[in-house]
Amino acid sequence: MKQVEVAVTPPYPVYIGRGVLEQRSLWQRHLAGGPVLVVSNETIAPLYLAPLLSALPEHPAPIDYLALPDGEEHKNVLGWQRVIQALVDLRATRDATIVALGGGVIGDLAGFAAATYMRGIRLIQVPTTLLAQVDAALGGKTAINLRAGKNLIGAFHQPAAVLADLHVLATLPEREYRAGLAEAVKYGLIADAEFAHWCLAHAPGLNARLDGEIEYLVHKAVAHKAAIVTADEKEIGERALLNLGHTFAHALETATGYRHFLHGEAVAIGLYLAARLSERLGLVEAGAAQSVAELLSALALPVHIPAGISPAALLERMRLDKKATVEGLRLVLLKALGEAIIHNAVPEADLLSVMEEACL
Amino acid sequence: MKQVEVAVTPPYPVYIGRGVLEQRSLWQRHLAGGPVLVVSNETIAPLYLAPLLSALPEHPAPIDYLALPDGEEHKNVLGWQRVIQALVDLRATRDATIVALGGGVIGDLAGFAAATYMRGIRLIQVPTTLLAQVDAALGGKTAINLRAGKNLIGAFHQPAAVLADLHVLATLPEREYRAGLAEAVKYGLIADAEFAHWCLAHAPGLNARLDGEIEYLVHKAVAHKAAIVTADEKEIGERALLNLGHTFAHALETATGYRHFLHGEAVAIGLYLAARLSERLGLVEAGAAQSVAELLSALALPVHIPAGISPAALLERMRLDKKATVEGLRLVLLKALGEAIIHNAVPEADLLSVMEEACL
Repeated sequence: MKQVEVAVTPPYPVYIGRGVLEQRSLWQRHLAGGPVLVVSNETIAPLYLAPLLSALPEHPAPIDYLALPDGEEHKNVLGWQRVIQALVDLRATRDATIVALGGGVIGDLAGFAAATYMRGIRLIQVPTTLLAQVDAALGGKTAINLRAGKNLIGAFHQPAAVLADLHVLATLPEREYRAGLAEAVKYGLIADAEFAHWCLAHAPGLNARLDGEIEYLVHKAVAHKAAIVTADEKEIGERALLNLGHTFAHALETATGYRHFLHGEAVAIGLYLAARLSERLGLVEAGAAQSVAELLSALALPVHIPAGISPAALLERMRLDKKATVEGLRLVLLKALGEAIIHNAVPEADLLSVMEEACL
Repeated sequence: MKQVEVAVTPPYPVYIGRGVLEQRSLWQRHLAGGPVLVVSNETIAPLYLAPLLSALPEHPAPIDYLALPDGEEHKNVLGWQRVIQALVDLRATRDATIVALGGGVIGDLAGFAAATYMRGIRLIQVPTTLLAQVDAALGGKTAINLRAGKNLIGAFHQPAAVLADLHVLATLPEREYRAGLAEAVKYGLIADAEFAHWCLAHAPGLNARLDGEIEYLVHKAVAHKAAIVTADEKEIGERALLNLGHTFAHALETATGYRHFLHGEAVAIGLYLAARLSERLGLVEAGAAQSVAELLSALALPVHIPAGISPAALLERMRLDKKATVEGLRLVLLKALGEAIIHNAVPEADLLSVMEEACL
């Protein structure tokens, strides 16, 4: 088992290894004294709820669970209200703990419930997708979607611990696994060229889900995220770099009603679009976008905008992005492979051209 | 104009004086650059929205307002969603500002929207009731009610500034004014015996709403609240003392569907019940409850539980209080007039007896 410390106030550990969700000692260390609500979804609960519950020590307060329908379209006000109601039914007090057992959707939704129930109760993240392990479960961002946009409602609420069990990745469907690779690769593009090269060189091993490759990838990605989150807990500065590709991705997801893309797939397209735009604006040397496309393709990730999605409609949605200001769109772009920067007042004409050229 | 600094991170000022809500320089200093949404209610908006809007400087982004129906029963998920929708309609980005123009209900509701829209946008509190000026608008507690209990959902979100305009208190209905006095008097009981004596001695002037008396009372109360909030931003320790009388008050309000009592009226009864319980448990010298009753009565505030409310039902609701733990009820009680303490595992039998004896 590896351990990474996220040094915010108060600091919290990320445990990475096979079988960590069944380790009694970790639960004993991190549960609060009050009731425990495990929030999961109907896909994950049948697989991992029983092992998790059997690993909870003799707890002095009631334990209950809630399995929500699977899918990003349930990460909304109604889903959040269901979690809150489950807490009320459990007579949860301020010393209660929410355990989020699932991917990014469950982590965000249960996390937002933990952030807002009685102005904040303890949260333990047990991410069951690669994407959640390398990104969503870390850093305290919680959110739900509105029809008007993804993650428009949310709060910062740091977990008390993150249990990243590599064993659960074995049952992950192929698409979900690849979507997670996109977020991991992102750290290479933002801040670590060597890691980006490692990902390309080890693409066959990663595609085959070899133990050693997965452990290295998750540990490296978690360490990068932990360092960035620590430096900038509330996303005032540097942390915004983690949004490389994400403004595009959110627009793609919203435009397709959260049904067409997995988040990581949309991010892969967004990473490529960001690289192309960086090239067009002369920020990064020519050929960078091609390198990004090669890396993503080696991991069987998409880079083009599918037919039927209008770039003009994507642009319209990007204008409502949380990173937009009255001065215009603010995007994270590339200065080099391995170095991201924030670019203000992005010219909309260039943005539109890049998207039009990337349409299938 | 008086100014009190609340020294949390980042610190923010409370401006106390006649006409502060119309002072352009204050708005210029504290608005963010993006869109502005003024949230008010249908009672307050006709009185103070126009003066406020006319005082906003030439702002570079759109300004809009939303007047919600008046009353605690609208401080719920639907009301919160209306504020969020108004922000979406305004195309509000992270550099937007919410101005909460109203009493505690508007402050809590608009504050919770500011806490959760895009994970937090700027909030300026313009409290228009005495209660909100001396308590609710300060300290960053935001919340909405569930059917299961008051303030069960919420977040900590500090304002960027508080404009406490004493001029608006002139139009405050008598009951609302007195309800505010209850929260102000509370600071005396918790931490400042001299202030409690001043309130009793100046009850006639306070009842007549004399300028000097009101200014002294608001400034004193704000200074007390600022000191306590600064010492304990997230209500981990000392700040809990501010809840003197409030566990009773919340139960009274919930049991009557938020329709019978103004919050401060319920607090007045709660202060008296807390004093009686303190006496019964031998925490405070005999006669303390009588002194509390005299002070509250001098300000024409209620101290008894009205007919038709069952103490057993109140007890049941108190068990779901945010301050309850698996070890039992935790209440703020009195050690002396001017000194409050936290008391754990309060015996329910004593609690019930005290409430039964205080029924009309």
